[in-house]
Amino acid sequence: MKLVRYGLAGHEKPGLLDARGHLRDLSAHVADIAGDVLTPAGVQALATLDLEQLPRVEGQPRLGPCVGGTGKFICIGLNYSDHAAETGATVPSEPIIFMKATSAIAGPNDAIEIPRGSTKTDWEVELGVVIGKPAKYVSEADAMDHVAGYCLVNDVSERAFQIERQGQWTKGKSADTFGPIGPWLATRDEVADPQRLGMWLEVNGVRRQHGSTETMVFNVRQLVAYLSRFMSLQPGDIISTGTPPGVGMGLKPPIYLKAGDVVTLGIDGLGTQRQEVVQG
Amino acid sequence: MKLVRYGLAGHEKPGLLDARGHLRDLSAHVADIAGDVLTPAGVQALATLDLEQLPRVEGQPRLGPCVGGTGKFICIGLNYSDHAAETGATVPSEPIIFMKATSAIAGPNDAIEIPRGSTKTDWEVELGVVIGKPAKYVSEADAMDHVAGYCLVNDVSERAFQIERQGQWTKGKSADTFGPIGPWLATRDEVADPQRLGMWLEVNGVRRQHGSTETMVFNVRQLVAYLSRFMSLQPGDIISTGTPPGVGMGLKPPIYLKAGDVVTLGIDGLGTQRQEVVQG
Repeated sequence: MKLVRYGLAGHEKPGLLDARGHLRDLSAHVADIAGDVLTPAGVQALATLDLEQLPRVEGQPRLGPCVGGTGKFICIGLNYSDHAAETGATVPSEPIIFMKATSAIAGPNDAIEIPRGSTKTDWEVELGVVIGKPAKYVSEADAMDHVAGYCLVNDVSERAFQIERQGQWTKGKSADTFGPIGPWLATRDEVADPQRLGMWLEVNGVRRQHGSTETMVFNVRQLVAYLSRFMSLQPGDIISTGTPPGVGMGLKPPIYLKAGDVVTLGIDGLGTQRQEVVQG
Repeated sequence: MKLVRYGLAGHEKPGLLDARGHLRDLSAHVADIAGDVLTPAGVQALATLDLEQLPRVEGQPRLGPCVGGTGKFICIGLNYSDHAAETGATVPSEPIIFMKATSAIAGPNDAIEIPRGSTKTDWEVELGVVIGKPAKYVSEADAMDHVAGYCLVNDVSERAFQIERQGQWTKGKSADTFGPIGPWLATRDEVADPQRLGMWLEVNGVRRQHGSTETMVFNVRQLVAYLSRFMSLQPGDIISTGTPPGVGMGLKPPIYLKAGDVVTLGIDGLGTQRQEVVQG
């Protein structure tokens, strides 16, 4: 299933896209795409619905973040060997974890707001993993049972805030609108192999990132198991698994976003995002 | 007011402590000590209640985290000049920000669970600032208007996970039970000067930390304003403002927590916590 949340920011309703891509309303069945709805039992209950009987949503409502109630927005740093190289870093020997503020989460097509004082707002197309079942000390063998599904993430990053303003990357990762997620949460059964997904990002129509989840240093299974040793994971938590080469910081000379730019990105099977850049 | 949450973990009810320290139930008036209840209007509404008319809670129920619905648990690193010195770090030129997972939040007297594989679980008594009004690009002059109140925090930290396991401190700060908060949220009017609060921490009755918020490098007003430039703050967000000297890592030789230890800590006006240490 392709699960979505639609409507005004902060008042999104749950929905899904049917086989023809039509938006259908799930409000009569679940309160939100969040929490228990993401558990194996919750996803199974949705899978039994007759989609043709669900009300069609007319028009083109805004799509919100495809998951609600996210308690943690965890990111993995330098998780593509070729991206590590472009930033001048070595490939880490174990996953680098940092957090984005959950208040950074935005809809897939909401504007990206350049923070005041920013000079280096950058892009990062990433595969997001949505947790569906609580995870603590889980093995790699069992890790995938804890995944509800996948979504597209733009891990928008302010490089000066991240790197030049006294340690800890979270400072450059957490501004409002820095975490577009969606358009949809593809349930796990929709994605045959999360380590074989092409991904791309363009700025003003110029291809900047192009890669595949094949080149991840630590794969989804390893990441879920690894993270669960350092913190417990809950349904709705999102793990953004790192970005392939082509970020603005890695260009020579570097290029950063400015008001008026348009960012588009996509991952195979997870849809596309489009963000206009505005000054905050 | 001293606002509390009491009852079984995950099912806490809202309450407050009256002038004699008696626990009284607020369930008839608010659903939780969270969100809108923390706004200036929400706190004002509670202040108009006749405490003597609120039902007394009998017995000694568990106290939960004093704030619910926390979206961000933000910590400030090396924010006491003398603590920076003991860790061998220089005083930062601007605040160091890192995140604790919100899933680490625990009640003030819940056990601290040493994570599997941990060898360096450490303590940090800290002043917690609870946000009451959304904050984004606020000035230092206005910053205190966005503070609902204060609480005691133990920023439990696994030093090997934090420092020796590939960058970004969040990895050593986020295990379940690593964030005891409470016993109560003291509303802002209860604390005459947040920069004049004595604080202490003992392990098995041995005084390990002793300090005052007077020696913070960046004070509460500065921190709220600073943070609001990098991320928006929402009611229920917690800022833990750094720790004074005396952490286990700073002792010569270092001392870390082991199963069976008892940690006690307190801050003037914010009550005390007591945690037994268990193996996870």
